[in-house]
Amino acid sequence: MKKIAVDMDGVLANVYELYHQFHERDFGKRKLPEEIMGIPEGEAFPTIRQFIYETGFFLNVPVIEGSQEVMRKLNQQYELYIVSAATEFPKSLPEKQTWLGQHFPFISWQQMVFCGSKKVIKADIMIDDHFKNLDYFEGQTLLFTQPHNCRNNDHQHTRVDSWSAIEKLLL
Amino acid sequence: MKKIAVDMDGVLANVYELYHQFHERDFGKRKLPEEIMGIPEGEAFPTIRQFIYETGFFLNVPVIEGSQEVMRKLNQQYELYIVSAATEFPKSLPEKQTWLGQHFPFISWQQMVFCGSKKVIKADIMIDDHFKNLDYFEGQTLLFTQPHNCRNNDHQHTRVDSWSAIEKLLL
Repeated sequence: MKKIAVDMDGVLANVYELYHQFHERDFGKRKLPEEIMGIPEGEAFPTIRQFIYETGFFLNVPVIEGSQEVMRKLNQQYELYIVSAATEFPKSLPEKQTWLGQHFPFISWQQMVFCGSKKVIKADIMIDDHFKNLDYFEGQTLLFTQPHNCRNNDHQHTRVDSWSAIEKLLL
Repeated sequence: MKKIAVDMDGVLANVYELYHQFHERDFGKRKLPEEIMGIPEGEAFPTIRQFIYETGFFLNVPVIEGSQEVMRKLNQQYELYIVSAATEFPKSLPEKQTWLGQHFPFISWQQMVFCGSKKVIKADIMIDDHFKNLDYFEGQTLLFTQPHNCRNNDHQHTRVDSWSAIEKLLL
């Protein structure tokens, strides 16, 4: 059975929606899409690290559209692992695990990996929104479109714009 | 630079010492070495899972002798990762990270991995006390002697009885 390593933030978890909400709470207005296109998350939302350190941040992230249904199907045909770069924010670890349990109850603790770097991850396919993770990976790479990566027309990775695109590719 | 994946419980963290202490607290006497030799941890200490769920358990584990000095040296010559199967006990994750920060301050968050299964780990060398982790690993495997594994004379893995044995092999 082929192994898939699925990223969490920006692939399963809609962190951008929460960045927008926190930004609006703190600055009174929402950023326009064109203001954040092609810009690293930390530059688009300069107070992002402060949001991320808030207790409960990761518990409240909305789920990315379509991810639950497609993940449920993938889980039957692949050895599925959630691989999240999370040790930079130690408090986020139990929150992320709780969030996964709530929204992806078919994913067991055996299928979760919380790490700092993804250079030690071995699988056949990696789905991620960050080049820094995909570039080191030795298997098939799917780049999940997010504002920060949308202007980089790299052709080393297969770009996917939605979970239905992943479904078409892998199921 | 070669990558080493180092296990935490039973390799860096002396969990047996804490199992003994909890057992003595609850049953009034310490188990004899011969009572636990070659027996899985959960059978040797039947209330082990209850200890592990106690808040603070992983904060209070003593460090295995010699591990700090040798790890500091390995960290200069190898790409070192701590890989701990920890997601079965979600509350342990921040405790384990705090413990690492206290006893191995030269290990950064980028070098930490908390997972359920080690089947997704890629490195050149793995140091672990459990066959279930070493048996799936594709690189060089060092089996760190602990009571639960000491009667299994498997020759697939290189047995190491101490951190000075690791030092001799790898440095």
